[in-house]
Amino acid sequence: MTEPVQLVPGDTIGILGGGQLGRMMSLAAASLGLKTHIFCPDENSPAFEVADRHTVAAYDDLQALDAFAAECKVVTYEFENVPGETAARLESHIPVRPSPHALEVSQDRNTEKEFLRSAQVDIADFATIDSENDLEEALELLGGKGVLKTRRFGYDGKGQVMIRDLEDIDGALDKIGNAPAVLEQLIPFQREVSVIVARDVNGTCTAYDIAENHHENHILKTSTVPANVRAETADAARAMAIKIATSLKYVGVMGVEMFLIEEDGAERLLVNEIAPRVHNSGHWTEDACLTSQFEQHMRAVAGWTLGSAERHSNVVMENLIGAECEAWPTILKDPKARLHLYGKSEARDGRKMGHVNRISPKTD
Amino acid sequence: MTEPVQLVPGDTIGILGGGQLGRMMSLAAASLGLKTHIFCPDENSPAFEVADRHTVAAYDDLQALDAFAAECKVVTYEFENVPGETAARLESHIPVRPSPHALEVSQDRNTEKEFLRSAQVDIADFATIDSENDLEEALELLGGKGVLKTRRFGYDGKGQVMIRDLEDIDGALDKIGNAPAVLEQLIPFQREVSVIVARDVNGTCTAYDIAENHHENHILKTSTVPANVRAETADAARAMAIKIATSLKYVGVMGVEMFLIEEDGAERLLVNEIAPRVHNSGHWTEDACLTSQFEQHMRAVAGWTLGSAERHSNVVMENLIGAECEAWPTILKDPKARLHLYGKSEARDGRKMGHVNRISPKTD
Repeated sequence: MTEPVQLVPGDTIGILGGGQLGRMMSLAAASLGLKTHIFCPDENSPAFEVADRHTVAAYDDLQALDAFAAECKVVTYEFENVPGETAARLESHIPVRPSPHALEVSQDRNTEKEFLRSAQVDIADFATIDSENDLEEALELLGGKGVLKTRRFGYDGKGQVMIRDLEDIDGALDKIGNAPAVLEQLIPFQREVSVIVARDVNGTCTAYDIAENHHENHILKTSTVPANVRAETADAARAMAIKIATSLKYVGVMGVEMFLIEEDGAERLLVNEIAPRVHNSGHWTEDACLTSQFEQHMRAVAGWTLGSAERHSNVVMENLIGAECEAWPTILKDPKARLHLYGKSEARDGRKMGHVNRISPKTD
Repeated sequence: MTEPVQLVPGDTIGILGGGQLGRMMSLAAASLGLKTHIFCPDENSPAFEVADRHTVAAYDDLQALDAFAAECKVVTYEFENVPGETAARLESHIPVRPSPHALEVSQDRNTEKEFLRSAQVDIADFATIDSENDLEEALELLGGKGVLKTRRFGYDGKGQVMIRDLEDIDGALDKIGNAPAVLEQLIPFQREVSVIVARDVNGTCTAYDIAENHHENHILKTSTVPANVRAETADAARAMAIKIATSLKYVGVMGVEMFLIEEDGAERLLVNEIAPRVHNSGHWTEDACLTSQFEQHMRAVAGWTLGSAERHSNVVMENLIGAECEAWPTILKDPKARLHLYGKSEARDGRKMGHVNRISPKTD
């Protein structure tokens, strides 16, 4: 077995994707004396202006991928829908971290759920759906209610249909473009929490404190830390995230979303999905921890030791969606707030334009 | 009176100087959605790789300065030795913050000391030295001991000669290149503290907690916060820094170095010098405060509201000089440490290569 590749300061990390996550990774890399090279088809990518180099090319442009790999020591990505061929091509030259296997698992809800089950973490019951017939059968098995979700390319609530009774089946598959799907059991009275976990090339894992997340219009609105959950639930969530990262032999930072179910005074966790990248629900780490999730990811990807995930402050992260970013002058006046803007020129509806972390002294 | 220029996200701040301070300012600007354009004669400037744009040109290249000004809304700098003509040329196009007047005052020790005296803050006694005769007379007036310092271009102990008796006068002016100089009274049993103060375009000031600084070979080695001084001394130091910034009608972050003298159980402060820029002894703010000095400076320069200077953690900042940066793998293993490297390729003796902040829970 060969030693895993380890970078030294001055080396370059390649990043697929030039959005806000790539941008924040670049900024974190720069603080560590590492360079970044962003690869993105969009010539107006916000990450370009803070990276040492960038390439504008399609993800299936093999020649551009080869040239990109030649200038990087390792490559990572900011989004889970990196095409398998892209990852494979890059991996023929340099390490891809997290591995293409982590991409495969997280790109398909069915594969992901089967993996999670094999990793022995609790998930909601589900069934694979390829036809209306499958859907009818599954609905009965799952208690007459469920959420129909495409297996691939779903995000921010897109590609999902709620099924509350048999009648809702009619046309449901059309609504998701008749794509291969899964039906998930509908979980009642759920809250959502998430864990940001990191694993280094030697298998050491560290998990941040869990965040409690609130969504608006299917888009993350706030993450609050500490989450209002029992200490044993928080510990269990972190342990589950570490179990998942370990099972995948993962390298980097991963976001693990979970449903929290309160039943008969007890708290139970079901893993909803994993994201093989830095995660919006981990943006709070930038101002409430010594090591942000972005630095943590850069360290893992570089083959370096992970930093402490300890939290020094309480924090509420709020996303600035679309025109909400226009409130920046007001946010600057709040002494507890730190403003983060992504350098996007156009504030379209539903577009993540920035976020704000509001901190207060640590209470636990 | 016209309203001061205020930037909006997406605007560009010009920065003269492409070293680590320019680099860290660029990173802070990017977090706020602001762009930076670095102007520096050195084509290997560490700040270039994190800035949106850069210009490689001499500081007296008027054509390059005009083109640079045309692409920026405001300009600042990372070093106090910006030539007066450079600042004046830029100011004919766009605001220069801090003002060229702040540069003039801080570029000449004699002017600086006269300004500080007029601002009614305490300083060590001094005399203007243009000849050996001046030096002899001054030495007698200042009690037979003093430090001879060039009026201009001194830094990190360069351009200084210790005078302990009349014999030391012989050849002293030669040692500083017979440049115009001042003789400062020698302060016994001194410790050094510093204050990072910020003032916005509307005159609001905020000062960070004071740092206690230790030097090795005339180069800053550590800054410790909280400083081991009485609460009333810390308050007095901050008040003095605010007085200085206010007297100068300053805009931006300023470093104010002070000597702390312990006499008969009392603590007394003398201002040593001011630096019209972000300051090495303020690097601790990056990991112990919500608003770093770099963000604070970018906010002030942009005409924005200042952030809170409150500190959430105790901290010791240690500079990594020359080959000390090779300890990075060990530093990464310390869970209390955050490593900052400047992306400089060559670790020459005495060169500032990075720093590390070690934090612990706040005790006061």
